[in-house]
Parts: sequence; C-alpha cells; structure tokens
Amino acid sequence: MSVNIENRGSRAAVIGLGSMGFGMAQSMKRAGLDVTGYDITQAVVERFVAEGGRGAQALADAVEGADIIVSVVVNAAQTEAVLFGPEGIARAMEPGAVFVSSATMDPAIARSLAERLEALGLHYLDAPISGGAAKAAKGELTIMASGTPEAFAAARPALDAMAAKVYELGDAAGIGAAFKMINQLLAGVHIAAACEAISFAAKQGLDLEKVYEVITASAGNSWMFENRIPHVLAGDYTPLSAIEIFVKDLGIVQDMARAERYPVPLVAAALQMYLAASGAGMGRDDDSSLARLYAQLSGAELPGKNKEPNKS
Amino acid sequence: MSVNIENRGSRAAVIGLGSMGFGMAQSMKRAGLDVTGYDITQAVVERFVAEGGRGAQALADAVEGADIIVSVVVNAAQTEAVLFGPEGIARAMEPGAVFVSSATMDPAIARSLAERLEALGLHYLDAPISGGAAKAAKGELTIMASGTPEAFAAARPALDAMAAKVYELGDAAGIGAAFKMINQLLAGVHIAAACEAISFAAKQGLDLEKVYEVITASAGNSWMFENRIPHVLAGDYTPLSAIEIFVKDLGIVQDMARAERYPVPLVAAALQMYLAASGAGMGRDDDSSLARLYAQLSGAELPGKNKEPNKS
Repeated sequence: MSVNIENRGSRAAVIGLGSMGFGMAQSMKRAGLDVTGYDITQAVVERFVAEGGRGAQALADAVEGADIIVSVVVNAAQTEAVLFGPEGIARAMEPGAVFVSSATMDPAIARSLAERLEALGLHYLDAPISGGAAKAAKGELTIMASGTPEAFAAARPALDAMAAKVYELGDAAGIGAAFKMINQLLAGVHIAAACEAISFAAKQGLDLEKVYEVITASAGNSWMFENRIPHVLAGDYTPLSAIEIFVKDLGIVQDMARAERYPVPLVAAALQMYLAASGAGMGRDDDSSLARLYAQLSGAELPGKNKEPNKS
Repeated sequence: MSVNIENRGSRAAVIGLGSMGFGMAQSMKRAGLDVTGYDITQAVVERFVAEGGRGAQALADAVEGADIIVSVVVNAAQTEAVLFGPEGIARAMEPGAVFVSSATMDPAIARSLAERLEALGLHYLDAPISGGAAKAAKGELTIMASGTPEAFAAARPALDAMAAKVYELGDAAGIGAAFKMINQLLAGVHIAAACEAISFAAKQGLDLEKVYEVITASAGNSWMFENRIPHVLAGDYTPLSAIEIFVKDLGIVQDMARAERYPVPLVAAALQMYLAASGAGMGRDDDSSLARLYAQLSGAELPGKNKEPNKS
C-alpha cells in the first residue's frame, strides 16, 4: 500500500508484534498511519521503534489516543486478557475507537467479546487473517471480517493498509470467526491427508518428487499438499506454521462441533495425529512434521526423517 | 488428436464401453487406429458401430488381430476375468500384443496380472487413468503408466490418442497403480473434508455461496472442494462420480495399508462416511452426497437436501 493522504492523522496501535503483527504494523506505518506497537517482549518493540514506529511499554500507553487497535495475539484467552484482564484496555480505549481482533477463535467467544466491548460504547471488528508473515509485511493479507457498519468504517484505514482482500461477511462479530474456522478445518485435514499420503508413497518406495509432480497436476491436489510437501521433500521441518497451531485450531473446531451436535470424523482423526506429533516432541516444528510421525509409525523412509525434532 | 498417418494399420480393441471407455475408443478411432469395441451391453457396441467403429459380440472376437487391447473395466476382479476368466483373452491375444489396463487396483494385483501375461509372451501396461468422461472423449486424459519398454512401445499409438499427458513412472507394472492409489487416497479424503466443512458451515447458518468464494481463494482449498461443492450448492446429486467409487477405492487403500502395516486414520474415517452414505441409500448418487449425509446427521439445512436419494 502506498501512503494515503487521508490516513494522516489516523492513530493506530498494534498489540502483539510477532511474525504477523510486526508485518501488519509495518504495513500500516507505510500506508501513512501513526502506529504504536506493543508486545510483552520489549525487544521487538525496540526493533519497531528502530524502524521508525512508536513503542509502548504498557498496554494502556499503547492505546492512548488510538482510533484503531489491531490485536494480533494467539488465541481467545489472550484476546480477552488484552481487553478485559487486569491490564485490559477496554477501559482505556478512546470513545468511538475500534478493536480489530485477528486471533482465530470460537465464533461464540468473538460474539461475547464484541457484546462486552459494545456495551462500553466501543467498536469490535471480528477480523481473522490468512496469508502468512510475508504477506503481512507486504500489506497483502486476506481478512475474513464481520462487524457493525460503524466498526468497519472505523477500521477501514487499517484494513486497507494490511490486506489485499477484505471479505465483508456480515454485520455482527462471529461470522468472520466462523469462516476462519471452516478454513482451518479444511487446512488442518488437508495437511494431515498430505502427510498420510506422502509417507504412504514413501512406504511403497515411490519416487516422491514424481509423486509431487503427478499429484499437484491431478484431482488429488490441495493448496496445502502443494505448499507443505516441499518441506517434507527437503527434509526441512523448520517451523513456518507449527503443529501446535492445528492442535489449537482443530481443537476449537471439535469443541464447536460437539456443542452443536455436529459430527466431525475427519477433524477428529486429524486432531489425534497432531496430538501424537506434539506428544512425540514435534509440537513446535513445522506442521508438515505429521509426515515424520507417519514415517516413525510405519518404518517409511523420508528425506532427512531421522532429523531430531526442533528444540528451538 | 488429429489423424496420424503412422497409426494406420494399428489395430486396437477397447474392452468396456462405459462413459470412459466409449470416449477412449472414439479418441483412438479419431487418431486413425482401427478400433473394435466390446462391452457386455450390446447396445453400446451397436452405438459405437453406428459411429463408424467396429463391434464384437464376444471377447475373443474383439482381440483377434489387435496389437493393442485397452481394458476399461471397473476393478481388479473384472480385469482378471477379462484376461484369465472362462472367456478370457490371454490365450486369444496376438503374439507381441499389449494389454493396457486402466482400472484402479491394488498394485500387487497389477504386478501379478502382468507376470501371468508376460509368461505367455504378451505385454502388460499398468495405465490407470484420470480426467473424467469429457476428457476421455477429447483424447485428453492423464495416464499414470508403468511397464516394460516393450509394453510402452507397443501401446504408444493408443496412449498418444487417449491422453494429453502420459506419466511414465517406471519399468514394471504396479507403479502406475500405486500412484493412482495415492491420488485416490487424497481425492477421497478431500471430498469427505469438503462435505464435512460445507455442511458444518450450513449448520452455523453461514452464506454457503460466500463460503465457496472465500475457501476457493484461501489455504483451505482443494481441487475436490472447488469441483464438488458446486453440486452441493445446486442441490444436484446426479452422479458424475458415485459414492460407490470411493467405497471401492478407499477400501483398496485401507487394505493395502493394513497389509503394509501403515496406519491411515484419515482414510479410515472418510471410508466410514462413504459406507454410511451408501448404507443410507446414496451409493449410486454423486460422491458429494456426503454433504447430505452430514446434514442428515446434524439437522443442517443444505440447498435441496430433502431430495430423495437418486434411484436411477
């Protein structure tokens, strides 16, 4: 996004400067917003300041004077703590400000957080993100958003700065979260299926590079097969997205489905494999480590499969 | 494929003139081969004759004088019957002729059939197909082939006529079959995942057209989600590929995996859903009928979901 003159004067705060949040803060700054960054790790705040942003040492300081607060924390519990915990910002936000929540969570919790914040006269935009750190840094995320027209209007400068595509999915919080959970259901099952398939091919002694070539050109292809299997072929399980992410997200799907009396046998099977991978010491490794798990369980030989789980 | 002067004189037989075999026979004829069609249903043989092909009333007649026999039957049992059953053609094939086997089957059976045929001085090409009836009719299939150099050489005019892409995957039967099973593993799991997801979205009251738009542009996408979910959105379960195909193919994968001591939890979960759909009367309906099964099991409302199972 190029600098937009209309953004001058918009003040934003980014809560959580991890690989996604840092890039999103950079994108907003590049688009002309006045951005303050906050993270519990002070070193990343200093890095953001070194790149010309503002930094805050406390949550309340970060949101003072901000029209838009973008929360890029890990889950619902952290989101609730940011808003309503002991240091929570709900009471410190400026009148009319909007809280843009990007964590993946159960839609019911998103609805509840929105109701509590709206009761204080503030806005909540349910805005899960998709796209990874590289797209975050380039301002090219996909955002699956829902909320009141007022929440969208207030968040617009930040949305335009962060995203190549903003889906406007409804006028209440929870809908964006529900769309994100459908995506995570599919993504999590597809990674598990890709790993079940590639290690089965290895068990049969097939040429795995050729399997990748044939499958990516066939009806068995998925976005995740195409994206993750190269990690397996390279024997490189450096975490781009970790096993624990899908332990969390398929766990949310399973809990939602149980509450709604909806059976999810594929999610349940995939979740067990992510749990087994985590239990076997690969929780912080790349989610394609499921292929190593299948190999360990079957004696299949993968490129570099005897590499130790990542201890970083 | 246009008429190729070098093909004049090549005589081929196609065993099984179903939606795939009929199109493959047409493509070979169009490419200049002299093609005889055979099917247990005499009416489709007559249709092929009406379009200018030759017809045979008995298996042995079909292969008389043929250099290439393309078998387009349903499974391993039918393939074995065509070759070695009471009316089997193995003893009737011309010396040096090649049997091109397109049925999806356990690689171990493909190897065994090839060995038995080669012991008679004949050639066997393991050549599972992918692409559907429309591509069969246009000569644009994908073929996952393996076999001896002699089998490939003998089959070449037919392969060129039938396929847009021939993967040459190895010099022995069984490798092509193994690649096809990896594809079927993924395809079968992805259809089940797509149906689990879309009916879960329906259960939550999401706009399903919007779900399709968002997912096909996101990391949760698969070839099968993109291809099959439009059937669900249209409420049209007219069989393009039936539930029973994946009852068969995931059954083969599960049997192979059990024999090799390889765990396939996702395949196992998906197979149970195909079995349930078949047991509930949808076996001959489109494989996207899994979405109706999930809806029936959860009270989710799908477009046209109350339509009766297809009784055709």
